[in-house]
Amino acid sequence: MRPQEIIAKKRDGGELSDAEIRAFIDGVCDKSWADYQISALIMAMVIRGLSLAEQDAITDAMLNSGEVLDFSSINKPKGDKHSTGGVGDKTSLVIAPIVAACGVAVPMISGRGLGHTGGTLDKLEAIPGYNVKLTTEEFHNVIEKCGFAMTGQTAEIAPADKKIYALRDATATVPCIPLIVASIMSKKLAEGLDALILDVKTGSGAFMQTLEDSTALAEALVLTGRKFGVRTEAVISDMSQPLGRYVGNAVEVYECIQILKGESDDSWADTKELSVELSARLLVLAGVSESVEAARQVATSKLTDGTAFEKFRENVELQGGDLAVCDDPELLIDRDLFRVEIKATGDGFVTAIDTLAIGNAVCEIGGGRIRADDKVDHAVGYESLSRIGDKISKAEPAGLLHCRSLEQAAFVESQLANAYVIGNTPQTRTPIISQVISSPKPK
Amino acid sequence: MRPQEIIAKKRDGGELSDAEIRAFIDGVCDKSWADYQISALIMAMVIRGLSLAEQDAITDAMLNSGEVLDFSSINKPKGDKHSTGGVGDKTSLVIAPIVAACGVAVPMISGRGLGHTGGTLDKLEAIPGYNVKLTTEEFHNVIEKCGFAMTGQTAEIAPADKKIYALRDATATVPCIPLIVASIMSKKLAEGLDALILDVKTGSGAFMQTLEDSTALAEALVLTGRKFGVRTEAVISDMSQPLGRYVGNAVEVYECIQILKGESDDSWADTKELSVELSARLLVLAGVSESVEAARQVATSKLTDGTAFEKFRENVELQGGDLAVCDDPELLIDRDLFRVEIKATGDGFVTAIDTLAIGNAVCEIGGGRIRADDKVDHAVGYESLSRIGDKISKAEPAGLLHCRSLEQAAFVESQLANAYVIGNTPQTRTPIISQVISSPKPK
Repeated sequence: MRPQEIIAKKRDGGELSDAEIRAFIDGVCDKSWADYQISALIMAMVIRGLSLAEQDAITDAMLNSGEVLDFSSINKPKGDKHSTGGVGDKTSLVIAPIVAACGVAVPMISGRGLGHTGGTLDKLEAIPGYNVKLTTEEFHNVIEKCGFAMTGQTAEIAPADKKIYALRDATATVPCIPLIVASIMSKKLAEGLDALILDVKTGSGAFMQTLEDSTALAEALVLTGRKFGVRTEAVISDMSQPLGRYVGNAVEVYECIQILKGESDDSWADTKELSVELSARLLVLAGVSESVEAARQVATSKLTDGTAFEKFRENVELQGGDLAVCDDPELLIDRDLFRVEIKATGDGFVTAIDTLAIGNAVCEIGGGRIRADDKVDHAVGYESLSRIGDKISKAEPAGLLHCRSLEQAAFVESQLANAYVIGNTPQTRTPIISQVISSPKPK
Repeated sequence: MRPQEIIAKKRDGGELSDAEIRAFIDGVCDKSWADYQISALIMAMVIRGLSLAEQDAITDAMLNSGEVLDFSSINKPKGDKHSTGGVGDKTSLVIAPIVAACGVAVPMISGRGLGHTGGTLDKLEAIPGYNVKLTTEEFHNVIEKCGFAMTGQTAEIAPADKKIYALRDATATVPCIPLIVASIMSKKLAEGLDALILDVKTGSGAFMQTLEDSTALAEALVLTGRKFGVRTEAVISDMSQPLGRYVGNAVEVYECIQILKGESDDSWADTKELSVELSARLLVLAGVSESVEAARQVATSKLTDGTAFEKFRENVELQGGDLAVCDDPELLIDRDLFRVEIKATGDGFVTAIDTLAIGNAVCEIGGGRIRADDKVDHAVGYESLSRIGDKISKAEPAGLLHCRSLEQAAFVESQLANAYVIGNTPQTRTPIISQVISSPKPK
């Protein structure tokens, strides 16, 4: 089958057969399809759309383009969480230790940040020495010893996805639900899981900004997970403002360690709540809890009794990280940085927050990547001090920027200040989780 | 402007501004756009379509991506013919000498064959020694001396088109009228013409198989030519069967020399008729004839009095070709080849011919290219002996294959035999030219 024939079929709106999709993915892997042929087909897929059958075939072909991990020698249910990404979204570092402490093994393969969203690997690398490039054997050993491990996508896991994703980023073909589903699920299914909880963000800082798109994505993800034999559930969670207090890399690890240590604070209450909720649902899916209510209590107890923190500490040690940051998380807040208060632009109530603008500002001062090969400054970040519904005035800071230079501050200050939309009437807060998608109807 | 922003706009169905299209074409030329970004945008253009303004902007940007030739020192009107390509379509070799003999300079930049359609350059190279890679200076000198020259697209002429066309061929993005218009016209406008006659083919051997598509393409081409200040006209000509008797390279040159020498034969009467008609219309457009009727008479006289042939002979000599083939065209028919009769599959009347299948068969035995870097066998070819409307029987050959081996014959024989659709009732012949498009209304 010539690439041109397959491309022409999708160009004209046809439905590709399983064999055609396999030929495409095989061609990506053995390099018989040129990059420009891959990107032409992907663009045709984005515009023409993909059927459920096509989406499943791509997921299956990408999954089987690489290694599928086998943790059958670990005598525990295997579970993981995946989030579609947002600003200040740091729950992985809290959930993995909680769930591991409850007897579920977590083989977590994470990504790096790109654009306004952060990535778990970048956050972990803010811990000096922490190794996110585990071999399959090391990954296995760390999970066996402390119940969870966090690593990057190796060349062996879904290599076709890795290649296609890089091209999609460069060719404006990211926004396409079936391709997003195939990309996420081909990696997650390669982890050999029993249970998977998905956190689909919605709102101004999310990849999917409308509830309709987020719900459609969540349903497609759950359906695919179940079809491939993984107990899967999704929540739609709020990303209309940064999650928790900190946005950045080291500062987000700081917030997680505080939560793991049981430190309570209003400014990160939502991070804790979402982490507990996702952990609880994963525990039920993994079969170690009877009900979400019971699981919530167990998850919370692992934070208060210190066992989740102990798991985290074990993991940091096993993955080569400096334990000093566990013992003294203040080390993660770089006191050499400039701290610049971001003032509200008026008096009133915060009615909306341009979360994307906040994520981009942190990215632009080095906290994230504009291009995939950019270096990340792990120390810089932002403290979000005002939340939707809060009373705000020009006299008080809406946030605090941690930056390397005052030039950086000058560059992003108005972008940050203008991110806060101020109105005259107080607003009711939206719940952190708006919807749970357990068993969508196949379409 | 990042490539992704421009790609995303067209992906979502937006209309690109002149500046965005210039940024794209500049990026193609300076290589700041990767091939996979170019092909993603092209696919979005093919599916979403392009407005007239976008089509003009691409034509203009591609034209100005390279050299625009200047023949102002040649004190004659400059004219050319362009055909959208077909099977046995060889009129360039007849038209250029006729028109040159009438005092119009013809700076003809031609292409090579790809797939079922032949290319003028390949045909010319069947003449031993003939040089189709003239420098701009040589091109100029040959035109000055004999009134016409035929050469390939240099790296300096519309380089953006050259790059984009190669990608379109590999990514199934060729069928798109605005991109076809931009590709053809950016090259033709670079010739610095006063007049242009376009031969848009329609039927089973044409790139555009329906009259509707062919007419739409013809109108768009004429409109663009006029907009850019060139007197332009198009004819829609029949490609529901091979043009003339021969399909191949050397054998087509043979047919042209016979016509130029004034040799009459029913089997190539249509080649002669179409060549005279296109020449006549070009002479009127170029301002050297008052009416098409008068121009037809002048053009015909150049064939009968030998002056067109003399022009051709001069040109062959100037471009380094072996004059022996002019003196004895039989040299172009390779007597070492196998000749295999293709029998009709039944008795009756030829009601239709799968011209594409005939073009592909000649291509497959080496007469054309399947891939752009294939070598061409100039000697092989096909003689089309039955035409639509002819009475046919199993006893007589429908055609004659000139091939290197009997394995080649075995490979394409049934494809050729089945190309002739046989019915019970005679069919009226369609005229060679069905429509002339002189001044379409802008849409």
